[in-house]
Parts: sequence; C-alpha cells; structure tokens
Amino acid sequence: MSVLVVGSVAFDTVTTPFGRRDKILGGSATYFSYSCSFFAPVNLVAVVGEDFPDPYRELLRQRRINLDGLQVHEGKTFHWGGSYRYDMNEAETEFTDLNVFEDFHPDLPASYRASEYVLLANIDPDLQLEVLNQIENPRLVVGDTMNLWIELKSEAVQEVVRKLHILIINDAEARQFTGEVSLKKAAGKILELGCEYVVIKKGEHGALLFSRQDIFSAPGLPLDTVIDPTGAGDTFAGGFMGYLARSGEISPSSLRKAMIYGSVMASFNVEDFSLERLQRLQEDDIKSRFQEFKALTSF
Amino acid sequence: MSVLVVGSVAFDTVTTPFGRRDKILGGSATYFSYSCSFFAPVNLVAVVGEDFPDPYRELLRQRRINLDGLQVHEGKTFHWGGSYRYDMNEAETEFTDLNVFEDFHPDLPASYRASEYVLLANIDPDLQLEVLNQIENPRLVVGDTMNLWIELKSEAVQEVVRKLHILIINDAEARQFTGEVSLKKAAGKILELGCEYVVIKKGEHGALLFSRQDIFSAPGLPLDTVIDPTGAGDTFAGGFMGYLARSGEISPSSLRKAMIYGSVMASFNVEDFSLERLQRLQEDDIKSRFQEFKALTSF
Repeated sequence: MSVLVVGSVAFDTVTTPFGRRDKILGGSATYFSYSCSFFAPVNLVAVVGEDFPDPYRELLRQRRINLDGLQVHEGKTFHWGGSYRYDMNEAETEFTDLNVFEDFHPDLPASYRASEYVLLANIDPDLQLEVLNQIENPRLVVGDTMNLWIELKSEAVQEVVRKLHILIINDAEARQFTGEVSLKKAAGKILELGCEYVVIKKGEHGALLFSRQDIFSAPGLPLDTVIDPTGAGDTFAGGFMGYLARSGEISPSSLRKAMIYGSVMASFNVEDFSLERLQRLQEDDIKSRFQEFKALTSF
Repeated sequence: MSVLVVGSVAFDTVTTPFGRRDKILGGSATYFSYSCSFFAPVNLVAVVGEDFPDPYRELLRQRRINLDGLQVHEGKTFHWGGSYRYDMNEAETEFTDLNVFEDFHPDLPASYRASEYVLLANIDPDLQLEVLNQIENPRLVVGDTMNLWIELKSEAVQEVVRKLHILIINDAEARQFTGEVSLKKAAGKILELGCEYVVIKKGEHGALLFSRQDIFSAPGLPLDTVIDPTGAGDTFAGGFMGYLARSGEISPSSLRKAMIYGSVMASFNVEDFSLERLQRLQEDDIKSRFQEFKALTSF
C-alpha cells in the first residue's frame, strides 16, 4: 500500500561539531520518503526550483519514490541553514530561504487522489489542509508540525489536528501547543481536539505514543556518535508510517511496532549527514536493530 | 537480606510551582532507606543534630529502618534549600548548611560490619571510602555521587568508583565525569575504571543500565503531575537495591527488574513533597505500577 507525503524538499546547510556541509539534500518530505521507502512505495508532493540537481532526484527515484507530484518552479529551491552545539539537542536556525515554497500550492496528480495513507510532513498548515481536501477517502492521515506554525497559525494547526488520526509532534512543541508541562496532560488536551493518537518525540530519549486508553514508550537507542540529527523526526515518521502501510493493520499492537520501526530508522539517520547513512542501509540492518530495541527494553 | 546505607539525613526547604515547604524531612539516606524498606530491612548510617525531631525518627523506625548507626551530634542537622522552576528538571540550590555533617565520620555499629548489600548514597567520597573500609566482605556495593564531588574531589570519586560493583549517576554528572556527550561512551569510560555496571538516571526520561555487554533502558512513566522531584534519584536507588537484596540474585535479569522497581518507587516519590506519597504507599500500589511499566514498554 503506497503512502502519500506532502512536505518540503530542500537544500540544507548544516554545521555540527563533526563538520559543515553545504546544500546537502534535506527537507521533511525527503527524509520521510527515503525512510518510508524501506517499507512501502511513496508518492511525493513538494516543490523545488530549477536549481534542483538531477542526482538528488535520482537518489529518490532509485527507492520507489514517485516524483510525479514534485513540481518544478522558476526560482530557487527552499534552503535551510542551521547548526548544532555539542549536545545536539536542538538546531539553531541560521537562515530559512523559502524561495519556491513562498507561492507553492500542492496540486495532486490524479493517481495520488485515492491514497489511503497520507503523511502531512511539516509545512504551512494551510498547505496541509489543501492536500487533505484533494484526497478522496484516506484510511490513515498522520501529521507533523513545528513551533513556527503553532506560533503564527495556531488556529490552522488546530484545524489540521482535528482532521488527523495521528499527530506527531516533539515534546517542546506539545508543551507550547497546549500550555501543559506534563506530556501526559499535553497529550490529553491534543486527543480532546479529536485525533485518535498522539506521538510525542523526545529526541535522544525516544518517543511516546498516547491514545485515550493507553501509553507506549519507545526508548532512544544509546549511540556512540550522533553526527547530524537533522531530519531525525521525519525519518522516524517514515519508518512509523511505512510499517503501518506495509502491515495493513492499524491496531494498538501494530502501532507499537511502528513506533519501534520509526525509532530504528531515526537511530540510523543521525549517524551521518543528510541521507548518507540511509543510503548504505540494508534490510538486515533494520531487522537487527529492531532486535536491539527488543533487547534494550525486555524485563 | 538487609541493606546498609550511608548518606545524609537532612532538613529540606523546597520551593516548587506547587508551593513551599520548610524543613521537611529529606536527605539521600532518608529517601533511600524509606524506599528500600518496602523490599528489605535497612541499616542506616548518618548524623543529625540535636534539633532532629523524634517524629521524623519514628517515621523511619516504623518501616524496619535500623537507626543504631544514626549519630546525634551537638549542633544543627544538615539543611538544604532549593527550588524548581516550571519544568522541574533541575533543582537550583539556594543554600547548603552542612552543620553536623562538617565533622562527621561514620562509625559502623558492630552489627553492621557484616553487611552484604551496601549503598553509598551521595555524600563526600572520602566518607564513602571510610564506610567501605569498615565493611568486611560485601557482596554488592552500589554508589551514587554528585556534580559537587566530581568537581572538588575527582580523584576520590574515581577511587570510590573503582571499588563499586555499580555506579548510579545522572546524565549530566556522567557527562561531566567523563567529558563525553554520548551516554554510551560515558558509560564505557566509567566501566573501564573497574565497576561492573553503570546506571545513568535521566529524570523524567527514565534510566539506562550499562554493562560491558549489554544496555537496558527503563522508561520514565508519564505522570499527570510532578509535585516535587527532590529525592527521586535516591528513591530510585532504594527500590533498585531493595529489590536486589530481596531477590538475593545479581544477574542481568534481576538487574533489569531492579531498574523497573527503582523507577516505580521514584515515580511515586515525585507525586508529593518529602516522603508524603511513600507514606501512603501500599504493597499493591507497587505491584500495579510495575505492571504499568510492563504495559508501557511491551511490543
């Protein structure tokens, strides 16, 4: 079962304690798609400029990622610059050049409109709503957002959340969105808006899945070295959604496994810049790291 | 099998977003003992001043905590004052009046010297060594420390660590002690000093257990309300050590369960000031929260 994703395809200029990389491939839809592609085919919706290089396009195509919905506009590709300090916990944004994203309106190819699995990666919530309006009868809609939209477009974010089955959000954003320090209370408030599940990501500390009845905690895998955490959240979402689409089952049990597959993919992603670690990834690596998570939590 | 603990018995003056309490019962050995007493009898070594009230003494005695090693010195009881901001992540120390602790030297009653289970709670590492020298043939020695001692007495801390089977330390202290950001690398460096296991506590994010072969991650239980996190780490150590003493087994499997019992006890402790939540605790509460941890992590 294929997964539709709308989000950003971008250049990232990233500085971490391990070095600096200029205009490497990034963007929420990029990380999501690449990660998801290990589990299910992906239909991507985004926009790039005329400067977007063919080798980047080819990288995505090689992994069953359908680019029919990738518009090319006159102008430059979205470009984000940021840096991480020694503790790698939070990126400091240095610049955000929206470029072609400023006038972007998603227009879904006819073949995408019957998508059953939809991931609204982090972009302007108005664009997320435009995408949802073009989808006929989705089975599972999962969405992400960020502090910027919660601050600038709180009502649109709320409207999106009401239409989601699952919201994926990080801990600081969940606190900002709800005004609650307790993540349990924050999740409760988000569930009251109408979605069925909330995933709260906690970076190196893992992620929590909340429903009205239940909580599941996925651990963070302790790693020797984190080279670049950019895209970890989107990579998590890719593994999470990809596993659900592949299994065809949306149940408490499949959601828990999906949380672990998301964590597995994110744990690989941070081990190198851009998609570099995921490009070297084999199916067996995923299986054995899933077993590592099992061993990490069994008692 | 009884557990010997050396540490502080103190007055705490604590301010949290939920209020302020003056001179409530606190101290590392207090929290440890009370928590441990749900699993095993405790022999306590510490010092208080003449101002230490009988009702506090009675509170400890009621729970099989042997106070033969609790010295009473002329002067005032150790008094710590601190406050927590809204996120409850770290205490800001307002004052530390060592008082009778300034000239304290532990002197173990004869009946304590054959102790098999020894917990060196957070006090001056030189005092921890003095205690160890008085114990004949311990089966399990577990120790805690804090940033202050790592800064002031790094060599004494290292000497203690070399004599421990298990070091319990928090994430910031592990990073400070080893100069490593990665907790996995930090644990590796500590294990090289000679102890067999390291427990790294991560506050609301749970705790990690490292051996040379293995890692276990105990989750933090998401709670509606955290009233006062003071003593959570010592309460964790109490459940951890108490379970090991009760089970009589020191194996990878019993250590994992001990991590969860430690987390169970800490999760109760933060729900109220001082020992108030633990005073209301029933055996069944512990059992059912252990099951909550099981449900929280199964996949």
